[in-house]
Amino acid sequence: MAEKDDGEIIEHHVCEEMEKKTNRNLDSHSFLESVTPSEKEGSSSTQSSHRLLAYSDALISIIATVMILPVSHTQIEPDKELQESLQRVLAAKIAVYLTTFLIVTVAWSAHVRLFQVIERIDDFLALLNLACMMLITFLPYTFSLMVTFQQDSFGILLFCCCAIVIGLIQAVIVVYGFDQPHLLNGQIQISENQTFYKYHILKIILRVPVFCFLAGIFSFIYSPLSYVFLGVVIFLPYITHPLKWCWAKAVGHQEEQPNGMMFYSYHPNEPLSKERIESFSDGVYAIVATLLILDICEDNVPDPSKVREEFEGNLIAALSVYGPEFLAYFGSFVTVGLLWFVHHSLFLHITKTTRLMGLLNTFSLAFIGGLPLAYQLTHEFPKNSLNELEAIQISCVIIFFAGIFQLAIWVTALFNEKETLHVYVRYGGKEHAFMFAKLAIYPCVTLTTFFLTCILRRFSAQIFHLMEIIVPFAFLALRIVVRVVLALLKLVFCPSKSVHNADDDTRLPFNSVLS
Amino acid sequence: MAEKDDGEIIEHHVCEEMEKKTNRNLDSHSFLESVTPSEKEGSSSTQSSHRLLAYSDALISIIATVMILPVSHTQIEPDKELQESLQRVLAAKIAVYLTTFLIVTVAWSAHVRLFQVIERIDDFLALLNLACMMLITFLPYTFSLMVTFQQDSFGILLFCCCAIVIGLIQAVIVVYGFDQPHLLNGQIQISENQTFYKYHILKIILRVPVFCFLAGIFSFIYSPLSYVFLGVVIFLPYITHPLKWCWAKAVGHQEEQPNGMMFYSYHPNEPLSKERIESFSDGVYAIVATLLILDICEDNVPDPSKVREEFEGNLIAALSVYGPEFLAYFGSFVTVGLLWFVHHSLFLHITKTTRLMGLLNTFSLAFIGGLPLAYQLTHEFPKNSLNELEAIQISCVIIFFAGIFQLAIWVTALFNEKETLHVYVRYGGKEHAFMFAKLAIYPCVTLTTFFLTCILRRFSAQIFHLMEIIVPFAFLALRIVVRVVLALLKLVFCPSKSVHNADDDTRLPFNSVLS
Repeated sequence: MAEKDDGEIIEHHVCEEMEKKTNRNLDSHSFLESVTPSEKEGSSSTQSSHRLLAYSDALISIIATVMILPVSHTQIEPDKELQESLQRVLAAKIAVYLTTFLIVTVAWSAHVRLFQVIERIDDFLALLNLACMMLITFLPYTFSLMVTFQQDSFGILLFCCCAIVIGLIQAVIVVYGFDQPHLLNGQIQISENQTFYKYHILKIILRVPVFCFLAGIFSFIYSPLSYVFLGVVIFLPYITHPLKWCWAKAVGHQEEQPNGMMFYSYHPNEPLSKERIESFSDGVYAIVATLLILDICEDNVPDPSKVREEFEGNLIAALSVYGPEFLAYFGSFVTVGLLWFVHHSLFLHITKTTRLMGLLNTFSLAFIGGLPLAYQLTHEFPKNSLNELEAIQISCVIIFFAGIFQLAIWVTALFNEKETLHVYVRYGGKEHAFMFAKLAIYPCVTLTTFFLTCILRRFSAQIFHLMEIIVPFAFLALRIVVRVVLALLKLVFCPSKSVHNADDDTRLPFNSVLS
Repeated sequence: MAEKDDGEIIEHHVCEEMEKKTNRNLDSHSFLESVTPSEKEGSSSTQSSHRLLAYSDALISIIATVMILPVSHTQIEPDKELQESLQRVLAAKIAVYLTTFLIVTVAWSAHVRLFQVIERIDDFLALLNLACMMLITFLPYTFSLMVTFQQDSFGILLFCCCAIVIGLIQAVIVVYGFDQPHLLNGQIQISENQTFYKYHILKIILRVPVFCFLAGIFSFIYSPLSYVFLGVVIFLPYITHPLKWCWAKAVGHQEEQPNGMMFYSYHPNEPLSKERIESFSDGVYAIVATLLILDICEDNVPDPSKVREEFEGNLIAALSVYGPEFLAYFGSFVTVGLLWFVHHSLFLHITKTTRLMGLLNTFSLAFIGGLPLAYQLTHEFPKNSLNELEAIQISCVIIFFAGIFQLAIWVTALFNEKETLHVYVRYGGKEHAFMFAKLAIYPCVTLTTFFLTCILRRFSAQIFHLMEIIVPFAFLALRIVVRVVLALLKLVFCPSKSVHNADDDTRLPFNSVLS
């Protein structure tokens, strides 16, 4: 209750301060008229940043998942064992994919943070943002150059250049935003230490160009050191807080953070725009779901002359050669679609996303990005070969981890459920069991499939396909199954209470909130 | 004013009816408890459809643009004239691309219409929608089979099967939605002729499976007839209204439409969700902007051994071979980005989108989808060849039409400006001139470039690249240029009034609204 009162007081304060600002803006009109027409015109040239951010999310999610393409297009010679070829050919490319995914996601979360500070945009910022996007989409290419030519300093130099320019553009955006305060986040707009915010944010943003500059210089002198610098850039935000915490514990001196320092604190609980996490995830899921159909559309339309010669004009016979690929497409679409569905249900119940949840989400997405590769592998090998078995097991492992990280998001949310979850999915809420069951389906099913394929090696493909067919029906029947199980559990453990009573019990949190 | 009063009355009516509904639901609880748990639980299992639709938009926009890939990956032998190879190899593929784009967009707009009626979803509808999406993403492949094997009825049969199943799933969604009225659009929920709505919508949705069924049957008997049936399916919505109008003019008898028939009326003014048009367009723009970097990431990382042998280990020299491709990437990214920027500005000023505007938007997007192909062509030919000139001119034509259709959207909006535009961009509004200038930049610049390249054939590439560099700065300087031009125009035509007065004039609409 005390919390709520505080909120109201702050809100009142906001209104007052906003009024002051507006008055000040009106006063300075005659002065600003010639300089910044955008400020003068207010509503028309200043725009909500919503669509710009949605477009940026779409671009970044495409780029994050695209590096799986070179991996999945790698030709694997079927006479070798998959494990061996994996180790030789794929391992490096998969590492590149994962690192690119990580780098792009780091750039994305910097972008999210930036536009949590700058909440409204005008034409100039929109164009600056497009320039920034262009360089971010170029990052994966520079990174793959860097990996392919590890001896050559050009790759790392190009990468650093891009990162430096991105950092400088972001700094310009911040300076421009603080120059025209009506573009800023309402909380910063009314804050008394606006200048402090400005320099704090600039300091954090410019850290990246500085480290990249050093990395670029050291690439000529001693290249391992430049990789260290780049690693620092990527992992610094994630380690500063634990380091500070350890330091405070060791020295015993607790550093005071300035009041209301909600942004750029790099605390694991720092809020990350839920909307943007959703739209970024949607982009990744959508690309991954369609990656296989892209290949099918391009490669699997047979040549008419070939059909005439080899299959005597029988199109169905010619297409049946591609059968496994269609199966792989439908399988991957269903799996990605259902994982999206779980993600959708999960984020429907989450009210606030923290940075840790964002990180777990990134890990989940990184595994999902590998799914088309896994599915493509499942149909590339002769039936009942050791390779096929391993490909199927890899698919299971990937889906398992994608599901586990989704589950981890929920567990993280439960730890702080009063802030991060809707009332009806908290412990004892009436949707709690359904949500848990939804999240548990994929990890359980893939684990079962994995062990079954270990035992019944000969039927691995059949087991895998059966799993794919069963899972959608499991989702459809989930609500009924959970109800039955809950009723049975109640009946077994509390036989004195009737089932109907048990049902009422689960509704308690609602009542306690309503009363 | 009368309109406003009506609105209030309707609103009051809504509240009353809603109350009735709620009561009825409460009464029937005991009966429904065992059958439909989702209805009982209301808020938790029933969800806003926002994210489901965003995900569907992302999937459909990817599929719509993907068919450009087989076109752009077509190898053109450089010793032939481009025009000749275009006619032979590309023409068919481009036709396939455009038709697929059209088909997918028709499926998309049917999806938009459906979810304008069904405004809230539950798990069952979400899963049904995913199944529907899977089939929609498969449509382009069946269509390309249909085109490659025109003599074989299998392709058309597969296409019809997909369309029939999609239609049936949509029908199930409608029946389910009307069965659980809390999922419906508020207006239909309170409408007295709900049953009429249900059968009207079902009739329109089931028209597609019926026609496809006929097409499938006739594919065995007389295949041209089946193409006619498919053509009818696609174009029927667009021609029914003009036909009805002509019929009414000829016979003189005006058919009465049922009151408040906002959905599925196929009137050019029928509203189409602005949000979904935006997110579909964002998807297309994002894919198109990144298509070239996908190719670059996959193909343009040189082989280390090749660099060692051919370029003596000089990576920069090896990469400079790919120079034109990087240029093409940056060029296409900038162009697509700026066209997105124009689209973004345009839709910022639009308050309501009609079906006609949606159609024009589709045409604009179809041209934009062809852009990566055009840009790829520009760098594939030797310098100063006739091929290069033609490729550059094709790029200009594509950008020109993409821009012209954007302009057409605005002109259409202006025809009905009171309903479709914000007050400050209407005729005489203060942003009117800026918006017009923004929309006019690309058509004007590409037209100029086209004619310049006709005259100065030798410098065509230079002119084209100069255009690319100038345009972003034109957008940056636009606001200042338009102000200066407006001031000059006022000075020339109305020398008696001062510039400042002229500025006040343009603000009149605002005042008239406020007073």
